Amino acid sequence: MFGNPYYAEKISDALENIQLPESPKNLYDPIHYILSLSGKRIRPQLVFMGASLFGYDNLEDVLPASIAIEYFHNFSLMHDDIMDKAPLRRGKQTVHQKWNDSVAILSGDALLVKSYEELSKCPAQAVPELLKTFNRVALEVCEGQQHDMDFELRNDVSESEYINMIRLKTSVLLGGALEMGAIIAGVDALERKKLYDFGVNLGIAFQLQDDILDTFGDPETFGKQVGGDIIVNKKTILHIMLKKALNSDDLVEFENILSLNESEGIAKVERMKNLYTKYEIFEQANALKGEYSSKSLDSLSAINVSSENKQDLIILSNNLLNRSK
Amino acid sequence: MFGNPYYAEKISDALENIQLPESPKNLYDPIHYILSLSGKRIRPQLVFMGASLFGYDNLEDVLPASIAIEYFHNFSLMHDDIMDKAPLRRGKQTVHQKWNDSVAILSGDALLVKSYEELSKCPAQAVPELLKTFNRVALEVCEGQQHDMDFELRNDVSESEYINMIRLKTSVLLGGALEMGAIIAGVDALERKKLYDFGVNLGIAFQLQDDILDTFGDPETFGKQVGGDIIVNKKTILHIMLKKALNSDDLVEFENILSLNESEGIAKVERMKNLYTKYEIFEQANALKGEYSSKSLDSLSAINVSSENKQDLIILSNNLLNRSK
Repeated sequence: MFGNPYYAEKISDALENIQLPESPKNLYDPIHYILSLSGKRIRPQLVFMGASLFGYDNLEDVLPASIAIEYFHNFSLMHDDIMDKAPLRRGKQTVHQKWNDSVAILSGDALLVKSYEELSKCPAQAVPELLKTFNRVALEVCEGQQHDMDFELRNDVSESEYINMIRLKTSVLLGGALEMGAIIAGVDALERKKLYDFGVNLGIAFQLQDDILDTFGDPETFGKQVGGDIIVNKKTILHIMLKKALNSDDLVEFENILSLNESEGIAKVERMKNLYTKYEIFEQANALKGEYSSKSLDSLSAINVSSENKQDLIILSNNLLNRSK
Repeated sequence: MFGNPYYAEKISDALENIQLPESPKNLYDPIHYILSLSGKRIRPQLVFMGASLFGYDNLEDVLPASIAIEYFHNFSLMHDDIMDKAPLRRGKQTVHQKWNDSVAILSGDALLVKSYEELSKCPAQAVPELLKTFNRVALEVCEGQQHDMDFELRNDVSESEYINMIRLKTSVLLGGALEMGAIIAGVDALERKKLYDFGVNLGIAFQLQDDILDTFGDPETFGKQVGGDIIVNKKTILHIMLKKALNSDDLVEFENILSLNESEGIAKVERMKNLYTKYEIFEQANALKGEYSSKSLDSLSAINVSSENKQDLIILSNNLLNRSK
C-alpha cells in the first residue's frame, strides 16, 4: 500500500462497497471495472492529508470529497484513453477497448456526474467552496488534456509550455485534492493556497521524474521497458530540452533517430541516450525537477502548523520523488 | 421566439456574452459553436417559469441555474451526436464532424463542468439542493441515452420500456429544470414534486408527439421530410405499437418493409403508413400522448398557486403539444 495505510484502507473499503444501479449494465459495469483496476489511490489520500494537516480528523466528513477526487480521476482516465487510443490501463484492457467508444464516453460522463454526487454529500457549509475549487480544477484538467493533444501536432513546444501542460493535466488535481481537505477543515484561503502550491509543484516534479525514469530508470527495478518514450517519439521534457540544445550536426542525427521505426527500438534508445548524455539532459532535467521539488517543500514549510502534522506529506513527497518505478 | 419572450431574451443575452478563455482554442471554440446553434431554449426558460410560478421574480438569482441547464443540454447533444454518428445538428455540422471525436468528447466534458460552475453561482442557500437535483437528473439522462443505444440492438422493446427510456433521456431534464426554479423560489418538496411531475409528463407527451409528427405531420408545415423515422427503421412508439399488434401475415409485410433500403424511401413510407392506418396506430399513439398530457395538467392543477401564475406553463404546454413541426 502507498501513502498512509489507514487512509488507503478507508478509501478501498468505500470503493469496494459502492452501490450502483443494476441497469443499464453498459453504463454501470464499466464504472465498477475501472474502479477495480485500483492504482495507488494517491489523489483521494491527499484529501485526507489536507484535512489532517490542520488537525481535522473526522474521516467520515472527509470521505465523500476523497471519493469525488478518485471518481474524477477515473473519469478522466476513461476519456483520455479513448482520445489516446490506449489499449491498456494498469495492465488491463481500457474501457473503450473492452466495450466500445460510446460506452466509454457515456460511462465516463456518468462517473463525472457521480463525482459531483459525492461532493453534494460533503458537510453542507463546505459544499459551495468545494464545488468552486473542484470546478476550477476540473476545467483546468480538460485544458491540460487539450494542450497535450495539440502538442502532439506541433514541433515547437517550449519548456514552459510543456510545464504548463503537465501542471494543468496532472498537477492541479493533486493541489486541488489537498485544498479540498483544507476546505473541509475550515482553513482560511491563505493557508489553503500554500497547501495547493505544495501539491501543484510536487505534481510537476513527479511528472518530470516520470519522464526521467522512462529513459534513465534502472531496468532491474523500473517495471516496464526503459526507453518506451524514446521509441514512440514522445515529446517529454528530455526531448524538448535536447531539441533546444542540439547543434546542427546533431540535429540531423536527432531527426534520423526520430525516423527509426519501433522495430529498431534498441538502437533507437541507445542512439538517443547518447545524445542525451552528450548534452547532459539527465542533469538538466533532474535540476528542473529539483527546482519544483524545492518550491513544493518551501510552500509546505510556510504553512503554520506543527512539523509533526506535516509528516505524512513529507513522507509522501519523498516516496513520490525518489521512486525507482 | 418561443415561450416567454422576456426570459428568452434574458437567456440569449447571457449566452451571447459568455466569456471563455482564448486558449486552448480546440476546447473552447466548440462550446461557442454549439451554443450559437441556438434552438428554442425551452429548458432554460423552464427554470425561470418554475421560479415565477411561485411568485419569485428575481431573474438575476435564477439566471445561473437556467444557464446550467442549457449548458448541460448542449453537453449531452455534443456527446450523443458522437455516439449516434450524427453529421448534422440544427442544420449545421455537429462538433465531432466539424472538428473530431476527441475534440467533441473533451469540449463536452468541459461544458458539463461549466454547467456545475453555473450552479456554484446560484444563491448559496439553494446550492446544496440544486446540486442534488441536478446530479440526479444528469445521471438519469445518461441512463436514458444508454437505454436508447441498447434498444437499437434489441427487437423486443416494450411500450413501457420505451416510455421509460424517453422519460430518462429527455423528460426528467424538463422536470428538473422546473424543479430547480422552484428550489430557488424556496418552495417545499411536496409542491416541487408536483411541478417536476408536470414537466416529466409533459416531456413524455412531447416526445410521443415527436414520433407522431415524423410520420403523420403535414408535409407543408413539418419542415423536414415526413417519414424520416420509417426510412431509417427507427424504433419509435409507432413502430413498437404496430409490431405488437400485427397478425402473422402483416408481420411478413412489416419485415419486408424494414428490409427496404433508403433509396426506396417513398415506397417504404407509403407501405408502412398503410400498416399504421390498418392498425389505427395514429389513434393509439395519440391517445397515449393524451394520457401523459392529462397527467401533466393534473399535476399542474394540484399546485397551490393562482391560475394567473400558471399561465406561462399552460401556454408553453399547449404550444409544445399542438405544434406542427
